[in-house]
Amino acid sequence: MAKVSVKGTHPYDVLVRRGLLGECGKIFRQQDICGNVCIVTEETVAPFYLQTVQKSLVEAGYNVSSIVLKPGECSKNLMSLQQILSFLAKEGLDRKDTLVALGGGVIGDITGFVAGIYLRGIAYVQMPTTLLAAVDSSVGGKTAIDLPEGKNLAGLFWHPDLVITDLDCFQTLPFKVYRQGMAEVVKTAILAGGELFSLCEKATCDCDSDMLETMVTACVTYKAQVVESDFTEQGVRKLLNLGHTPAHVIEKRSGYTISHGEAVARGLYLMTAVAYVRNELSEETAERIFGLLDKEKFPDDMVCLAKEFAEEAQYDKKRKGDSISLILPEGIGNCVIKEVPITELEKLYDGAMRYLYERNNKSR
Amino acid sequence: MAKVSVKGTHPYDVLVRRGLLGECGKIFRQQDICGNVCIVTEETVAPFYLQTVQKSLVEAGYNVSSIVLKPGECSKNLMSLQQILSFLAKEGLDRKDTLVALGGGVIGDITGFVAGIYLRGIAYVQMPTTLLAAVDSSVGGKTAIDLPEGKNLAGLFWHPDLVITDLDCFQTLPFKVYRQGMAEVVKTAILAGGELFSLCEKATCDCDSDMLETMVTACVTYKAQVVESDFTEQGVRKLLNLGHTPAHVIEKRSGYTISHGEAVARGLYLMTAVAYVRNELSEETAERIFGLLDKEKFPDDMVCLAKEFAEEAQYDKKRKGDSISLILPEGIGNCVIKEVPITELEKLYDGAMRYLYERNNKSR
Repeated sequence: MAKVSVKGTHPYDVLVRRGLLGECGKIFRQQDICGNVCIVTEETVAPFYLQTVQKSLVEAGYNVSSIVLKPGECSKNLMSLQQILSFLAKEGLDRKDTLVALGGGVIGDITGFVAGIYLRGIAYVQMPTTLLAAVDSSVGGKTAIDLPEGKNLAGLFWHPDLVITDLDCFQTLPFKVYRQGMAEVVKTAILAGGELFSLCEKATCDCDSDMLETMVTACVTYKAQVVESDFTEQGVRKLLNLGHTPAHVIEKRSGYTISHGEAVARGLYLMTAVAYVRNELSEETAERIFGLLDKEKFPDDMVCLAKEFAEEAQYDKKRKGDSISLILPEGIGNCVIKEVPITELEKLYDGAMRYLYERNNKSR
Repeated sequence: MAKVSVKGTHPYDVLVRRGLLGECGKIFRQQDICGNVCIVTEETVAPFYLQTVQKSLVEAGYNVSSIVLKPGECSKNLMSLQQILSFLAKEGLDRKDTLVALGGGVIGDITGFVAGIYLRGIAYVQMPTTLLAAVDSSVGGKTAIDLPEGKNLAGLFWHPDLVITDLDCFQTLPFKVYRQGMAEVVKTAILAGGELFSLCEKATCDCDSDMLETMVTACVTYKAQVVESDFTEQGVRKLLNLGHTPAHVIEKRSGYTISHGEAVARGLYLMTAVAYVRNELSEETAERIFGLLDKEKFPDDMVCLAKEFAEEAQYDKKRKGDSISLILPEGIGNCVIKEVPITELEKLYDGAMRYLYERNNKSR
């Protein structure tokens, strides 16, 4: 089993291996988790894993309750927040009890948010069931819900006490869902460079569980390092948003029919192209990045117009007054944060999108 | 002008004087507050102070928007939270902008909560317009909303950047509203003892503004010291809940027709009586405390049955498993936290309530 220790004011472990969900009760005891446990999950996850987790926790002597939300981004709002908070209050959970986020990123984000505000903060454990959540949202303590005005507009920083990543969960994921996680893996590979990037160049979608463990652990280790040095995203942690500024717009404008992972992949194409047209990235390096995205068969059509990206920048959390922070790859393992005036965004994105269009035409 | 500096990881000043609201724009500039400002207030406060505050901020060069909530505890819920969050998003407030809580405790609590979660946290300034908010909720960074299941069940710790306490606001408060603040002043006097207690024994409801400034500043100074040493209420800060465990039940069971201050005063009678019947407080000292409460003409009928207090302890944030932390005065300036099994609560409260009843009959 791989174990990544996230350091800082609130240290915790990320455990990565096959078959961990069935052993979670034992792991909870080893980690000195006491009190009662409430599992938050959703309808598409519950039939696969809820019983396994519940059984293991009950056998380890925990009182366990559970709440099952509707699946998908539509659950990441104030109504679900109210639903979970009232459930916890009715169940009488107190400050020594623990929540479990059993599911993908939506479940992790909203459960973390609830844990951060219920009785002004209780403990929670992440059990990511998607590759996307395992390599991204389950580590780092960023929690959020969406508002009608935009994605992740409300939330707080609240660390989990433990992350249990069972690799078996990913092997039953539909290809499209698995690939969403690969978008974040590729993002991390661009940021971290080195061995992780080479590993991704070699990896195939049916890679064995050892390779998967190495890849997931490398991603978590990179993210843990960044988060440790900048928990509340004042500086270097912003890099983790590579590709996410356009991705959030794409998700929103598609009415959330385009998944986060597919939107992030598009965002990675776009930011790489932006860096290239700004002469901050060589064509050769850009092509190595595009190659990784092409290999995963990610789409590179942006769905939105350059103008729409610029309009939506008004609502972006990364906006400060009249400018916005863009994260741009100036090399593999070398991304930088650039403040760009919002008035220049449309032209910049337009140029990058033209470049991607021409690149596509050439390769046909 | 009195200035209390609250130290800690997020230091800030509490300014106390007459006429400060009309100078708030200048004060904001002195404190290097930049960005836009959004004032959150409520219908009963807005006609008195909103224009004054807005004018001062605009004259100092700030862009100012405002949102006016319905008055009272009914605004302290997830619906108002949604309303404010959506307003901020539509107004396009970003991470360098600042909220102002202009009002009493409800406005302070919900505005602080919104500030803590909007874009994962922005700055806010408290401008308490009631004595209660000035001596209690405006300092310390505790924010909250109510759930249908109970008061303050969701919230987070989020410090203001500045507190501006204009004493003029209290001089126009109706007697009943002013007296609510006196309940927290008396609570602080019991906790702090010394000069503050003597001052309260001398004070009358029409005390002059110098005496008021001294009293408010002493309360804020005491609270600041406690909060500095225990921001997230792991230990000594729990003392500030003196009288609040029964108070929350009284408020809730009355459907919030009994105000927080009047409920806290009842809670102070009850906890003093509990300490006395447990033989932890001498009759003489108990009578000095009762005397302070009697002088302010606070009611000492508990409205609820002992059994109801015990039932509601299930939902109390201070419950840990089968026991609850009670804060008991063992002397003036000497309160202690005692873990009491919930099963013993009914008998304990019943004994204390009988004592108060007999004390009342004697004094007639």
